[in-house]
Amino acid sequence: MNIKEFFDLSAGKWFSHRTSHHLAFKQFEDGKSDIVIEILAADHPEVIKLCQRYKIAHSSAACSAKVTWNGIMEGNQQKDSGSAVLVSIPDVDNPDEGKLLRETGSTKEASVIGRYKVGSDGALTLTTEYENICSEERLWFASPNLRMRVRVLKRSDGFSTASFTSEIRMGGVPSTKKVSETANSASS
Amino acid sequence: MNIKEFFDLSAGKWFSHRTSHHLAFKQFEDGKSDIVIEILAADHPEVIKLCQRYKIAHSSAACSAKVTWNGIMEGNQQKDSGSAVLVSIPDVDNPDEGKLLRETGSTKEASVIGRYKVGSDGALTLTTEYENICSEERLWFASPNLRMRVRVLKRSDGFSTASFTSEIRMGGVPSTKKVSETANSASS
Repeated sequence: MNIKEFFDLSAGKWFSHRTSHHLAFKQFEDGKSDIVIEILAADHPEVIKLCQRYKIAHSSAACSAKVTWNGIMEGNQQKDSGSAVLVSIPDVDNPDEGKLLRETGSTKEASVIGRYKVGSDGALTLTTEYENICSEERLWFASPNLRMRVRVLKRSDGFSTASFTSEIRMGGVPSTKKVSETANSASS
Repeated sequence: MNIKEFFDLSAGKWFSHRTSHHLAFKQFEDGKSDIVIEILAADHPEVIKLCQRYKIAHSSAACSAKVTWNGIMEGNQQKDSGSAVLVSIPDVDNPDEGKLLRETGSTKEASVIGRYKVGSDGALTLTTEYENICSEERLWFASPNLRMRVRVLKRSDGFSTASFTSEIRMGGVPSTKKVSETANSASS
């Protein structure tokens, strides 16, 4: 698995279920979301714009994607929707690692630049540091229709959050099964 | 990290927080537990007994442990307590992989024999098949005081459960900090 293959396998429509454990408080938060991941061409205007922000030639991008989510947090029933553009820029000497540019449509978050690494086991690790927070996220496919994500947030004051997301493919590449069939075949 | 080092680092008292996602039903279950992990000597009576059950010489065990848990499931407030003995038997040609014997004190579950593998990234993967269920669990340390576990259950009828467990060291090896300090230093 290389970074392009990981993006390609991620393309499609997903049902995403996230639970966050607030480690110091022994509390949790649960949220569900519909997610659409679309592959963007290297010359897509949003890719060019994001690369320009970091003074990187867009032709050096291995792959790019737009992620759109539309969800709700349990408890307070707070809506959570938005979109983000992701652009991967492989290192020249090792394409399994590189920069990951990310820009969200939300005004709350600025664009960030992090690092990606595709492991020998096919898992993708994303590391981002911003302000006083370090985020490390591991994403992998339990099957082509079941994607898993674990993210640990480390704050400089020691408090941490561990989030787990299970994502079931509801349509798109590579499965073209109906929704009800896909939910039951996440293990296939 | 080898299997013995993984067991040694796991020894101690932990606060364990587990969330299970029932993939087909889009529902979840939350549970919290205190866990104590003790290393057992290769000639401990419970190790010898478990090895005898599988006709394996206990001298071939790399390491063994007893896990005792005392928890509660959210919602129905159902108590969940018990203990299990784990014995790792490395393959002769590759000690990073091998058999994992497991026996619980509970009468509900029989003893099972599975496989373990320590990856180059230090994560431990446990695979167990019993009846019509395949369980694959990945355990790793985000820090010496923060252990993570993700388990996927695949049933032959296609329904699956994905469980995430975050575990904060509350005492024992290698940290001897007070509980309150440890909860805040899970990222250290």
